[in-house]
Amino acid sequence: MGLIRGAPPSRLPPPAALRPERLVPVAPESENGSVSKDRLEAFSDGVFGFAATLLILGIALPAGHRYVTEHDLRVALFALWPNALAYALSFTMIGIVWQNHHVLSRTIARVDRVTVLLNLILLGITAFIPFATGLLGSYPWSRSAACLYGLTLTASATIFNLLMMHLARSNAFLPAISQRAIHDTAVSYRVAWLTYAVGTMIALASPGISFAFYVGIAIFHLIPRGVDSDAIAP
Amino acid sequence: MGLIRGAPPSRLPPPAALRPERLVPVAPESENGSVSKDRLEAFSDGVFGFAATLLILGIALPAGHRYVTEHDLRVALFALWPNALAYALSFTMIGIVWQNHHVLSRTIARVDRVTVLLNLILLGITAFIPFATGLLGSYPWSRSAACLYGLTLTASATIFNLLMMHLARSNAFLPAISQRAIHDTAVSYRVAWLTYAVGTMIALASPGISFAFYVGIAIFHLIPRGVDSDAIAP
Amino acid sequence: MGLIRGAPPSRLPPPAALRPERLVPVAPESENGSVSKDRLEAFSDGVFGFAATLLILGIALPAGHRYVTEHDLRVALFALWPNALAYALSFTMIGIVWQNHHVLSRTIARVDRVTVLLNLILLGITAFIPFATGLLGSYPWSRSAACLYGLTLTASATIFNLLMMHLARSNAFLPAISQRAIHDTAVSYRVAWLTYAVGTMIALASPGISFAFYVGIAIFHLIPRGVDSDAIAP
Amino acid sequence: MGLIRGAPPSRLPPPAALRPERLVPVAPESENGSVSKDRLEAFSDGVFGFAATLLILGIALPAGHRYVTEHDLRVALFALWPNALAYALSFTMIGIVWQNHHVLSRTIARVDRVTVLLNLILLGITAFIPFATGLLGSYPWSRSAACLYGLTLTASATIFNLLMMHLARSNAFLPAISQRAIHDTAVSYRVAWLTYAVGTMIALASPGISFAFYVGIAIFHLIPRGVDSDAIAP
Repeated sequence: MGLIRGAPPSRLPPPAALRPERLVPVAPESENGSVSKDRLEAFSDGVFGFAATLLILGIALPAGHRYVTEHDLRVALFALWPNALAYALSFTMIGIVWQNHHVLSRTIARVDRVTVLLNLILLGITAFIPFATGLLGSYPWSRSAACLYGLTLTASATIFNLLMMHLARSNAFLPAISQRAIHDTAVSYRVAWLTYAVGTMIALASPGISFAFYVGIAIFHLIPRGVDSDAIAP
Repeated sequence: MGLIRGAPPSRLPPPAALRPERLVPVAPESENGSVSKDRLEAFSDGVFGFAATLLILGIALPAGHRYVTEHDLRVALFALWPNALAYALSFTMIGIVWQNHHVLSRTIARVDRVTVLLNLILLGITAFIPFATGLLGSYPWSRSAACLYGLTLTASATIFNLLMMHLARSNAFLPAISQRAIHDTAVSYRVAWLTYAVGTMIALASPGISFAFYVGIAIFHLIPRGVDSDAIAP
Repeated sequence: MGLIRGAPPSRLPPPAALRPERLVPVAPESENGSVSKDRLEAFSDGVFGFAATLLILGIALPAGHRYVTEHDLRVALFALWPNALAYALSFTMIGIVWQNHHVLSRTIARVDRVTVLLNLILLGITAFIPFATGLLGSYPWSRSAACLYGLTLTASATIFNLLMMHLARSNAFLPAISQRAIHDTAVSYRVAWLTYAVGTMIALASPGISFAFYVGIAIFHLIPRGVDSDAIAP
Repeated sequence: MGLIRGAPPSRLPPPAALRPERLVPVAPESENGSVSKDRLEAFSDGVFGFAATLLILGIALPAGHRYVTEHDLRVALFALWPNALAYALSFTMIGIVWQNHHVLSRTIARVDRVTVLLNLILLGITAFIPFATGLLGSYPWSRSAACLYGLTLTASATIFNLLMMHLARSNAFLPAISQRAIHDTAVSYRVAWLTYAVGTMIALASPGISFAFYVGIAIFHLIPRGVDSDAIAP
């Protein structure tokens, strides 16, 4: 996907020729990848962080109204509880996406065009979460809002599954990563996809239960348990 | 908290197997940590910087109104002084949180699941500050606004205390950090927590005094004094 | 463009004297550039990522209206489809700009004042995209909106062409980059410019066709094809 | 300003003890500084980039109005020209601040508490620019708007002068930086301060001329001229 802007297929050799990772000695700090992977991570981290912070715009008092008594303001603030809950929920979800992205990124040796494309779609879906969250917070009992929220999470999980399939098929993982580990991770991704799809289905029947279901998933993911598999030995 | 999305407890081995810091030779520049810690810092820095910049949205002229005379506009601008003060206050507070985060991050050798979880909650609270600040600036004499602001700061200090406890209990600090230093820092965190809790209490009685109290805390923290403990010898 | 703030031409020697890359031994990790290039990339990545994330503000239900029935909300959400399409389109476009920027940045050895200036203008145009996108999404059948959008993309392509010309003329490319590769890339940039200019022309006749044309360009760029020229050998 | 949150003066030793740059071997890539300086730059770059991108929110069609004819929309868009001009102006100004920050940061060997404090204030002023810009764009003929804009730029230049004074007085510059270079740069900073102060004065008499004056300053800074003092020898 190098110099893709306007480069017709017959022009592909030039970008290849411009590819510096073949020409320039690789800097010592990028042992298991290239500057390319570093900047992909930096760009992705930026979008994840911005999207998470932008969520706060989903918590807002009705515009154009000025509260004159303490009581009115307090009532209006307490009425924002679904917005606050949706904020906490989505902040957690983006944190989980960031973390999965991080772990996956550390295990791969190659970044090819398809990976970049899927990554871009993942970022686009993640940056969409603030809209879906604001809607869910403002209309917590609406089927449309709960469905859109569930569809957004399901879309994100879909991309993770496609990414996993592509990485496995193209042998993009570091040699040290076992086939067993890849397979088991792929299975866990499929389970996650199913969970979000079920949550979206529930939304059609009962938006409130669906909202509670998403919160349950987030809490389940947050509770540290089992072996501390991310610990870094000193 | 590795591949946590949808990974049931029985699936924990795969993420462990995917853990590249055991498999890949550590790059020379990450002596006292890992890439993991670097990306945690990058993600956190992004949220801190973005939350601080988003504060400016809390200073705004009433929407939907167009000022026709110079006098009206000037009056409307001067009426924004509590918003401007709240902006300066919260910018400083986020700066202080960023700095504490920075110092703490440099002293630890391990990043485990609980640390990542507490860090995520800290980021969520920090990203909430723009809302609490906008409210405080718009309703500076409201008990609800001053209380919510105080609770937000207290929540942030609570996470720092929990983080400190967890890091100390799990021996996550670099070997060179003395027990004395850890203990004294923990004490200073508890003092900070108490200060914010007191500010929140004051808000119940007098929102104005509470606002002034927060400004006082910020100024106290900002004044450079004593040994220049962050100086870096050439 | 060193210490440019207020530095009259006769004062230019001081910045030169302050230039640390002549004075300080170059750190081992910056083999094909300098810290300067790194910070230019970091600043640019920040603006690209943030501009992409801000696009979401272009998808919003009409302010000040509260939907009371499920049906009304669903109708209002479906009416946002041009906004959603414009969002996806611009997210892709910014992703493409980011990628071209990335590839170009990796192939150059020098960052001079003109490069910094052109880069700043490119960032300013990119940060303008959220406004043009919101307008296109809200007024998809308007000639003005489609034209402004096309002009924004054309302006971006213009800067890329100017940048390419300047880099070629000033021999800023790494020695390993062949003249052939530079020439062919320059040609592909001109083709891209022409495409956007044509899209803008079409907007004058039919905004809808122009919108579809831009979406077509984005899809064309996204489809991975030909040799995987960005693959990184393990 | 180490572990400053709530740390009373008598508690200062602990942060000193926690200071890892004395305890941990310095990583090879941070020859002329420390990780501290790197993270200060990263946080600052983030705020600069976000503030620049947030400027776009200052260009907006009047909220709550839906344009039905092509003519009305076109007229409304053309009426935004002061907003667009203010956007371009402030984007340039933030770019200049970023660049000065960059150059200064590369020439110093020490980051102490006062530097961190002044840097924080500089960031707070920079993040305020979007508000001042939106106001200037919406009320280009208002004395209040032009004055506030001028005061914001003057405040930014004031911090740069204070920073320069502090760095010079505390011998924070790298040994290779000559006294002559420091002196000349300090003079150019004072000239810049004077320019902005004059612009603010003009605003009191004629806001329009003041706006044009700022645009003139920006263009003056942007034109590359003289020796290409930022060029990096291959």
